Amino acid sequence: MITSTANVKVKELLQLQKKAKLRNQEKVVIVEGLRMFQEIPKEGLKRVYFSESFYNRKKEELKLEQYSYELLSDTVFAYVSDTKTPQGVLCIVSQPEYQLKAVIEASQPHILVLDNLQDPGNLGTILRTAEGAGVTGIIMSRDCVDIFNPKVIRSTMGSIYRIPFLYVDDLVQAITQMKKQGIRTFAAHLQGENNYDEADYRRACAFLIGNEGNGLRGEIAEQADEWIQIPMQGQVESLNAAIAASILMFEAARQRRRQ
Amino acid sequence: MITSTANVKVKELLQLQKKAKLRNQEKVVIVEGLRMFQEIPKEGLKRVYFSESFYNRKKEELKLEQYSYELLSDTVFAYVSDTKTPQGVLCIVSQPEYQLKAVIEASQPHILVLDNLQDPGNLGTILRTAEGAGVTGIIMSRDCVDIFNPKVIRSTMGSIYRIPFLYVDDLVQAITQMKKQGIRTFAAHLQGENNYDEADYRRACAFLIGNEGNGLRGEIAEQADEWIQIPMQGQVESLNAAIAASILMFEAARQRRRQ
Repeated sequence: MITSTANVKVKELLQLQKKAKLRNQEKVVIVEGLRMFQEIPKEGLKRVYFSESFYNRKKEELKLEQYSYELLSDTVFAYVSDTKTPQGVLCIVSQPEYQLKAVIEASQPHILVLDNLQDPGNLGTILRTAEGAGVTGIIMSRDCVDIFNPKVIRSTMGSIYRIPFLYVDDLVQAITQMKKQGIRTFAAHLQGENNYDEADYRRACAFLIGNEGNGLRGEIAEQADEWIQIPMQGQVESLNAAIAASILMFEAARQRRRQ
Repeated sequence: MITSTANVKVKELLQLQKKAKLRNQEKVVIVEGLRMFQEIPKEGLKRVYFSESFYNRKKEELKLEQYSYELLSDTVFAYVSDTKTPQGVLCIVSQPEYQLKAVIEASQPHILVLDNLQDPGNLGTILRTAEGAGVTGIIMSRDCVDIFNPKVIRSTMGSIYRIPFLYVDDLVQAITQMKKQGIRTFAAHLQGENNYDEADYRRACAFLIGNEGNGLRGEIAEQADEWIQIPMQGQVESLNAAIAASILMFEAARQRRRQ
């Protein structure tokens, strides 16, 4: 058991915890907590760390001996943990990698395209909701918030392991490729000409969702086949990005159940 | 202009800022920021505080002379502000007060009932989305998060001034009264017998939404006329409470547009 924060392995772990750049170089993610630990696909798990008290408490129930783990004293665990009240399990996991071609050529595509989305909580919620709505893949502009941000990972509740996603440098090009593949692209836009529930999402479709404050960038929105809006009552000008995305995804799911 | 944090008015303001109990005694809310300031209905505005620099910058554009305001030096303003980077305008506003009878007897009721909702961000987002979806009132159990919490107020984006809401001590009794009034009550429940999109929300209806982690309490859920669920794909067990509420509210709005 490692009992000193000066231990070399602990120092390396802390570097990895703190530096997104290092994680991206090594193509890994750090995930914490029991729920997330249980959701990790076996092939992605690279290293596991347990706190002493977690290990003693859960050893039998979770058959912890099957993992090749490192044991940390509770103090050392708290030192490397990203959370205020650590649960006692932390894992190094391979970053999932997906190709644009695979996302676009999925069967019955139902895709989300996120343009410059900035809030980690929104991205996490969108991933979780997207899995529930049967979304087949998520394509993000390079300047979206980091999906491997610990706050995003936690708020996905495990969906990050199950839904294909990727960042692209050129969103316009990605949209062009989708359209070539016969995927109809809908921009969620306050100036949308049609209400969102008047379009047909039973065929291959993609929703373009913009930044929290500014919506879709003009050059992205103009690529869309159709602009749609969520009609609003009262004096509400716009919905939260995760809420708007959820309403669209579940309208597509609703229509597809009626196919 | 007040330039000292030892000023009696400043001390009183800080007490009000810090103590929910005091705000409830005086039946006021504190709201900050330009956007919220502009959304406040005139009759509710009790006192306004400007920072010196805000006043000098915005005096003419916003015709600030029309208000009976108090001017604070920027340092004093930062001292009483609840935000890290204060915008320079803070208001004391009357707490809106609504009666259960008025909410239930609204024309074409589309009501949300929140049972033990705990997250301020969720409540704020629900209010904002509810206004957009045409919800006519929100009824909350006494143990829901405080709607006058500054984080809730900010995330409503002004909807808090426009949508009727109230807390009740006895949610079961409130639901009974709704049912007597002919309002059909739908519990959002993971064990719902019908999919949410198979029910008819064009008549008077209410959605019961539960706590983030535990859902609806049994004694509340059993009051509902019908249990509905949002069908989910993948391994998602439940949706975030604000997302689930939004999908239901906008399904009702969608059906009502087709009436």
